[in-house]
Amino acid sequence: MLDKFKDECGVFGIFGHPEAANMTYLGLYALQHRGQESAGIAASDGDQVRSAREMGYVADVFDGGRLAQLPGSIAIGHVRYSTAGESKLANAQPIMIDCAHGQMAIGHNGNLVNARELRDELVQQGSIFQSSSDTEVIAHLYARSKKVMAEDAIVESVSQVQGAFSLVILTRDRLIAVRDPHGFRPLALGRLDDAYVVASETCAMDLIGATYMRDVEPGEVLVVSAAGVRSIRPFAPAPLAHCIFEHVYFARPDSYVFGRSVNEVRTELGRVLAREQPVDADVVVPVPDSGVCAAMGFAEQAGIPLRMGLIRNHYVGRTFIQPQQSIRHFGVKVKLNPVRSILEGKRVVLVDDSIVRGTTSRKIVRMVRAAGAKEVHVRISCPPTISPCFYGVDTPRRAELIAATHTLEEIRDYLEADSVQYLSLEGLLSAVQSERNSYCSSCYTGVYPVPFPRDEARYLQLALKLDRVEKHESVVTET
Amino acid sequence: MLDKFKDECGVFGIFGHPEAANMTYLGLYALQHRGQESAGIAASDGDQVRSAREMGYVADVFDGGRLAQLPGSIAIGHVRYSTAGESKLANAQPIMIDCAHGQMAIGHNGNLVNARELRDELVQQGSIFQSSSDTEVIAHLYARSKKVMAEDAIVESVSQVQGAFSLVILTRDRLIAVRDPHGFRPLALGRLDDAYVVASETCAMDLIGATYMRDVEPGEVLVVSAAGVRSIRPFAPAPLAHCIFEHVYFARPDSYVFGRSVNEVRTELGRVLAREQPVDADVVVPVPDSGVCAAMGFAEQAGIPLRMGLIRNHYVGRTFIQPQQSIRHFGVKVKLNPVRSILEGKRVVLVDDSIVRGTTSRKIVRMVRAAGAKEVHVRISCPPTISPCFYGVDTPRRAELIAATHTLEEIRDYLEADSVQYLSLEGLLSAVQSERNSYCSSCYTGVYPVPFPRDEARYLQLALKLDRVEKHESVVTET
Amino acid sequence: MLDKFKDECGVFGIFGHPEAANMTYLGLYALQHRGQESAGIAASDGDQVRSAREMGYVADVFDGGRLAQLPGSIAIGHVRYSTAGESKLANAQPIMIDCAHGQMAIGHNGNLVNARELRDELVQQGSIFQSSSDTEVIAHLYARSKKVMAEDAIVESVSQVQGAFSLVILTRDRLIAVRDPHGFRPLALGRLDDAYVVASETCAMDLIGATYMRDVEPGEVLVVSAAGVRSIRPFAPAPLAHCIFEHVYFARPDSYVFGRSVNEVRTELGRVLAREQPVDADVVVPVPDSGVCAAMGFAEQAGIPLRMGLIRNHYVGRTFIQPQQSIRHFGVKVKLNPVRSILEGKRVVLVDDSIVRGTTSRKIVRMVRAAGAKEVHVRISCPPTISPCFYGVDTPRRAELIAATHTLEEIRDYLEADSVQYLSLEGLLSAVQSERNSYCSSCYTGVYPVPFPRDEARYLQLALKLDRVEKHESVVTET
Amino acid sequence: MLDKFKDECGVFGIFGHPEAANMTYLGLYALQHRGQESAGIAASDGDQVRSAREMGYVADVFDGGRLAQLPGSIAIGHVRYSTAGESKLANAQPIMIDCAHGQMAIGHNGNLVNARELRDELVQQGSIFQSSSDTEVIAHLYARSKKVMAEDAIVESVSQVQGAFSLVILTRDRLIAVRDPHGFRPLALGRLDDAYVVASETCAMDLIGATYMRDVEPGEVLVVSAAGVRSIRPFAPAPLAHCIFEHVYFARPDSYVFGRSVNEVRTELGRVLAREQPVDADVVVPVPDSGVCAAMGFAEQAGIPLRMGLIRNHYVGRTFIQPQQSIRHFGVKVKLNPVRSILEGKRVVLVDDSIVRGTTSRKIVRMVRAAGAKEVHVRISCPPTISPCFYGVDTPRRAELIAATHTLEEIRDYLEADSVQYLSLEGLLSAVQSERNSYCSSCYTGVYPVPFPRDEARYLQLALKLDRVEKHESVVTET
Repeated sequence: MLDKFKDECGVFGIFGHPEAANMTYLGLYALQHRGQESAGIAASDGDQVRSAREMGYVADVFDGGRLAQLPGSIAIGHVRYSTAGESKLANAQPIMIDCAHGQMAIGHNGNLVNARELRDELVQQGSIFQSSSDTEVIAHLYARSKKVMAEDAIVESVSQVQGAFSLVILTRDRLIAVRDPHGFRPLALGRLDDAYVVASETCAMDLIGATYMRDVEPGEVLVVSAAGVRSIRPFAPAPLAHCIFEHVYFARPDSYVFGRSVNEVRTELGRVLAREQPVDADVVVPVPDSGVCAAMGFAEQAGIPLRMGLIRNHYVGRTFIQPQQSIRHFGVKVKLNPVRSILEGKRVVLVDDSIVRGTTSRKIVRMVRAAGAKEVHVRISCPPTISPCFYGVDTPRRAELIAATHTLEEIRDYLEADSVQYLSLEGLLSAVQSERNSYCSSCYTGVYPVPFPRDEARYLQLALKLDRVEKHESVVTET
Repeated sequence: MLDKFKDECGVFGIFGHPEAANMTYLGLYALQHRGQESAGIAASDGDQVRSAREMGYVADVFDGGRLAQLPGSIAIGHVRYSTAGESKLANAQPIMIDCAHGQMAIGHNGNLVNARELRDELVQQGSIFQSSSDTEVIAHLYARSKKVMAEDAIVESVSQVQGAFSLVILTRDRLIAVRDPHGFRPLALGRLDDAYVVASETCAMDLIGATYMRDVEPGEVLVVSAAGVRSIRPFAPAPLAHCIFEHVYFARPDSYVFGRSVNEVRTELGRVLAREQPVDADVVVPVPDSGVCAAMGFAEQAGIPLRMGLIRNHYVGRTFIQPQQSIRHFGVKVKLNPVRSILEGKRVVLVDDSIVRGTTSRKIVRMVRAAGAKEVHVRISCPPTISPCFYGVDTPRRAELIAATHTLEEIRDYLEADSVQYLSLEGLLSAVQSERNSYCSSCYTGVYPVPFPRDEARYLQLALKLDRVEKHESVVTET
Repeated sequence: MLDKFKDECGVFGIFGHPEAANMTYLGLYALQHRGQESAGIAASDGDQVRSAREMGYVADVFDGGRLAQLPGSIAIGHVRYSTAGESKLANAQPIMIDCAHGQMAIGHNGNLVNARELRDELVQQGSIFQSSSDTEVIAHLYARSKKVMAEDAIVESVSQVQGAFSLVILTRDRLIAVRDPHGFRPLALGRLDDAYVVASETCAMDLIGATYMRDVEPGEVLVVSAAGVRSIRPFAPAPLAHCIFEHVYFARPDSYVFGRSVNEVRTELGRVLAREQPVDADVVVPVPDSGVCAAMGFAEQAGIPLRMGLIRNHYVGRTFIQPQQSIRHFGVKVKLNPVRSILEGKRVVLVDDSIVRGTTSRKIVRMVRAAGAKEVHVRISCPPTISPCFYGVDTPRRAELIAATHTLEEIRDYLEADSVQYLSLEGLLSAVQSERNSYCSSCYTGVYPVPFPRDEARYLQLALKLDRVEKHESVVTET
Repeated sequence: MLDKFKDECGVFGIFGHPEAANMTYLGLYALQHRGQESAGIAASDGDQVRSAREMGYVADVFDGGRLAQLPGSIAIGHVRYSTAGESKLANAQPIMIDCAHGQMAIGHNGNLVNARELRDELVQQGSIFQSSSDTEVIAHLYARSKKVMAEDAIVESVSQVQGAFSLVILTRDRLIAVRDPHGFRPLALGRLDDAYVVASETCAMDLIGATYMRDVEPGEVLVVSAAGVRSIRPFAPAPLAHCIFEHVYFARPDSYVFGRSVNEVRTELGRVLAREQPVDADVVVPVPDSGVCAAMGFAEQAGIPLRMGLIRNHYVGRTFIQPQQSIRHFGVKVKLNPVRSILEGKRVVLVDDSIVRGTTSRKIVRMVRAAGAKEVHVRISCPPTISPCFYGVDTPRRAELIAATHTLEEIRDYLEADSVQYLSLEGLLSAVQSERNSYCSSCYTGVYPVPFPRDEARYLQLALKLDRVEKHESVVTET
């Protein structure tokens, strides 16, 4: 796999459409880049809620027959990020339950920082958890709520959790969208004729022909029912903390998130980068696909021709077989093909969006050089990544982040590049045209807007990464 | 599916490598763009030939266990173009037989124009065909050859067929590569340490770290055995007829075919196109992925900024579900996403490599305009496609080719574009830097270098498209 | 399917064996006749409990790899009766939970008559149920128990349920077997070297070479741990109510249940039947396989030769295809083949163990007559079945039981037999050599040892057949 | 697997029925005991022949969808005996070809003793074989026949083969049934309304309601077409050689083969055995299912009660897992359960139809004794099996047949029985009520009615067991 942060999820919801499950399928398809591990849909026909979820891509999980078994005009959907292992099906979403308030399904993008504490308390009270997902905590709080009205019970439940959460919730007759008061993860609201649509990104609306209206606001609980849309704001006010990495890498370039065009922001990141870190070179080559926008901005600003000197192979399968005999640059050549006629004899600026561990970047630099490049200058369209994320992004531990433990010169040495330069945090913030405090940039600063347990290692094991524990049993034993 | 010509096949062979089947697997993986319907490998351990073939992508068909069942240091492989239907497994290659000359496997890229006549004759003599593939004719000629030596029998067999054929053949102890005297389809020769490698394109050599030596020459039969490489030239001299469409669309940009860098040729096509058919515009947008190289050349030459205004979705599955309710531009939006922030209010030059029926182009133009483009100018980096191919490319009938039946103005009307212009044949030939007569450009001219039965309709039914007959029974009834 | 009552389940448990999961697999294999819908095993290695369960036969659900993933020396297993539909996986057992008392798995043979009431209460308190199984109630009671020790929590939980329950329960370090105070369903205890074994029938012990010690007694909670075996008797004394149908049909002839050899009892049923209902005939023919034992006793007592005049086809698959054109006696001929040379011209006594709806019996009589029988006399080795069971046997409603709604003469008419006679209740009880009150014979008498809601139809919908509700949604709506 | 000879195949054909493929499916279902490895059907709608074949049971291979793809009023079908390994699909039947005579499908029960010689010759002439099946020889002879009429070509082809063959052949418009002049294997002819039916056994006719007319006679070629039934007798007269083992073990008891009721013959074998080899005992116990008929005859004749002291387990799956720890009598207990209450303290006569290697019999004797039997007397309802079969039965080599290499006393010793006795050949022949020379009893006598190469070992390798060669490559190397 490429050495990138991984988004945890994408969510979608629709109310009042005769083909609600079909539209949700399409919406999830457009959000597939936010999660390739599993896909799920829950739909209500006003009488009964039905759901289906499975490991795999949206287009593989759902066919016409399966969608036909999800009738009704209200639906929600969820895609989850890609890891190995069937055993994770229990963690796929939407989570669906039947309880005293009736049937309810929930899909979640984000991460709850107090999930472990709430879970321990619920278990002590006799609740039986089916998964290691933090989201299931909300389901149990809901099941135990003494509120008479289902939407009151939902408000009561979400008021108890802390952290990052963009939620879509389905009951027999309602679609409810919730965004945490910091607004960590995006959540957009739109219309498709008479139907209401919510989605992690606007690209899901584009595919089905829906029109973007506004974002679900940070701290807003939006209840869509036959009576119309009702907005509740049960949370205490909190500082904004939009995830800046959505702009850098996660979101699709054709989406608008946090009110900005992703493509425009990224191209601007390239332009600022070219101004901050110019280099005398013959050709600008993006690392596809994530570096393309920034590379265009960089090339334009620098007046250096852009060329597709690395081509991505789109046929990579799950079970790709490694030969016993070592082949030079094999791992990365399976995914990226260098174009010798572009690279040979050239001074190359390699533009990428980010470096995590540096392992892939190192292989790419070597491969580009092996294809004849005279010089290789790495330019990264964001600041050095030095801290893990606790708000819904799958990141390695701090110790594995190359920029957290190495100087710029050491990184250059490791990558075997002629030069390596990052965009400055100021440059990044200027490109998103925002005052500093509306974004969370904790992965670049280590400053976390919502507190979490001090001991990172413990936190990783107990709270955030509970579902990882299953895979890495040694981690558990260490505790 | 996108409205493109389809390549029929890719072939690969290796002699003298301890991991012959693994290397062939990787080679086929690199050639996957030449055929996604089926994949197959045959390998010999010097004693026994074993083979495996199946419908599907290389990385799905083969896993470690299956490759382990193909031991030996000689192997060939084949990928076939993508169509629907399991029933085609019988036509997957390599074809493997056991006969009086021993075991033999064969993989073929191309098309034999006299296959039907030879087949009829062989059947009259009592041969039993297992498939509708033209390639099986060679197997039966081989089985019936009275030559004592296997390689003499092969030479005798291939001497009887006419048309386009780049072949890889495996016997118990030999790898044999054959290229028809016209050299329609590419076939390169390389080395990997002590091993010899042949492949449809050089990109297959790059992945495994092999070095390109030269092309298997038109009319050459190359026999690789423990005794070394022997070159035989059993065919009468014939005019060269390299498939020019390999440069325009088929081959991978990082390959060299017919001695030229594909990327370089394509970028040059864009430059020539910009000179021949300039347009006053704000942005150049390629139709990905095939139009990217030419768009870069066009943008550069024209001095207009290039932008990725259309983004390709890489998660498209086989079973994509169409909603009942019509969605504007749905079919094409599933594959391509317009980036509104790039297109809105702009005069757009849309660069693509070719137009076949025009159906997809029309949808793209509409979608680009719906995303806010003020003007849409279509520029195609090859001449109008007016004639079907009989040399190994899957093309529709002449009647379906929009340029064969419509004037340029009618095409512009149909596409709803502000202007449509093609590259001239002269421009195309100048970009491949070749004298006219070394290339086959029959798809643009209707001039065929190897004769075929006059009645195209009949020919399509009886000879070339025999395997289609199964799917389109009505066609048979027409006869 | 043949027209028979269906057993609901078989359970197995083992403590202290190095191959606990393997032994459980074998034990379930021997108990396969008690349930063919799904199979499951849970095992503990003293540290962690793992489980696997799936729709299908034991030998299809488990292979070596799956068993290897269930390490440890303690295990329980469960087989469930056969119905259609994948959707029932949620109801497969063992049910496994993680709760404040740690991990726990439970397998159940029987039926809880107060499950619905307990469930409603638990849901009101905020419990989330995952299945429609009555057994899950015990799991939630356990999760909510405030007892400190796991086994005290289990005793507290099972003390709240009423009805029929032979349970195997697994915790991290204990195997617990529970039998309801009436002793409805069998549960035997045995030893295999140092290991303890519990199983629904002794045939499961025979296969693995274990020795039968005694039955788990009605009302006994048996806790097996490293400290040895401890017997608890938390229930109020209650009259015995062994299911007499275990002897008539359910149990395997090579088992001992309720202290008696099943084969011996069944053969004796045939002898008593011959004395009570003699008939002048040429040949005694069993309906295989269930009628064989009784037919042997009947033939011997009557001095009439026994012949296998009906042969069972063992290759029946799940997806058997019915031809469009009607074939005489088709449905039953697929399962049973009449042997003309035995039946032709003969006066035949057809011996079967029971008649439920009569539909299959009618077809068999017709088929036997079509094969040339001169007379067909039906003899049934139990009394007329007139009442449904509420203690763990899958029976149709009263209205569907032919003997509940028809006189003997009407039954004879319907079956088109020359005579039909049943064994008397006295004869049945004399053959099991028991005082009347140690057996439940409610299916023959309508007298139920444990009370249940008066309105049978409602009860069927709400309590007993909750899992059917999913299939018959209209039933739900009626409520 | 139980230690039995294995039948090689069953065949079925029907002409003139609107549901020809469905009827063939049912016919094969009734013949499933003759072969469980693979199943196949070919059908003609008068215009095109279509076929489907796969590894597995009839009811698993075919579903409604697959049968619907085999339209037409003429069909043939084939079941093949059970061995392991997917690789055998190429050997499944019907074999279907397209050749100069048009499409043709063929199904074969038997074995051709001169297949190897004919095959070698055909390969030398350039024929390409797809399988190792002897039957494919007939297909190639047919493809090469210069006869103008298809049925003349078939007659010419079958006239060249020698050995045992009951064939069903399908062309576009004909059903052809062929039986070798010795009549080794059975083949019956029947009617179902206006349709004609041929089948290996009459039980296939019973299931679909067809009426048995007569056997296809030894040496008869029966051509069924729109013009009616035509009988051809192209073979030289030859002595009859019906396979006596069909009566002893292969055929289903409800079938008539060679004009006799199988059940009646088998019961009579038991009676004669009781007269020839009486024993003072308490109970007669059959080894199920094959020993049941003979045990009934034995018990009756001897006046000893019959009891089902061994019960067969019908849930045995393919992937049955063996525990690591040895369990007494495990292998046989998985298939057969001893009933202690029947065997304990008794002198038992164990009746079985045959002993091949003796391995299973030894385990059964031990198991019966372990269940408490005081004495175990083995009685076999046929003579000692001393020679392999070359006419279509899967038998081990002579060296593996216990009776070929051991005295009766040694066999008794090996089986650990109190006595072992076989039926005499005279007794066997008297029970089939035949003059000696109408039956082949070569497995008991070593006298072969059709000659075969002297060197048995070579013959096994080259001719009869060609398909085994794939599995036992060492055998090939020996040659």
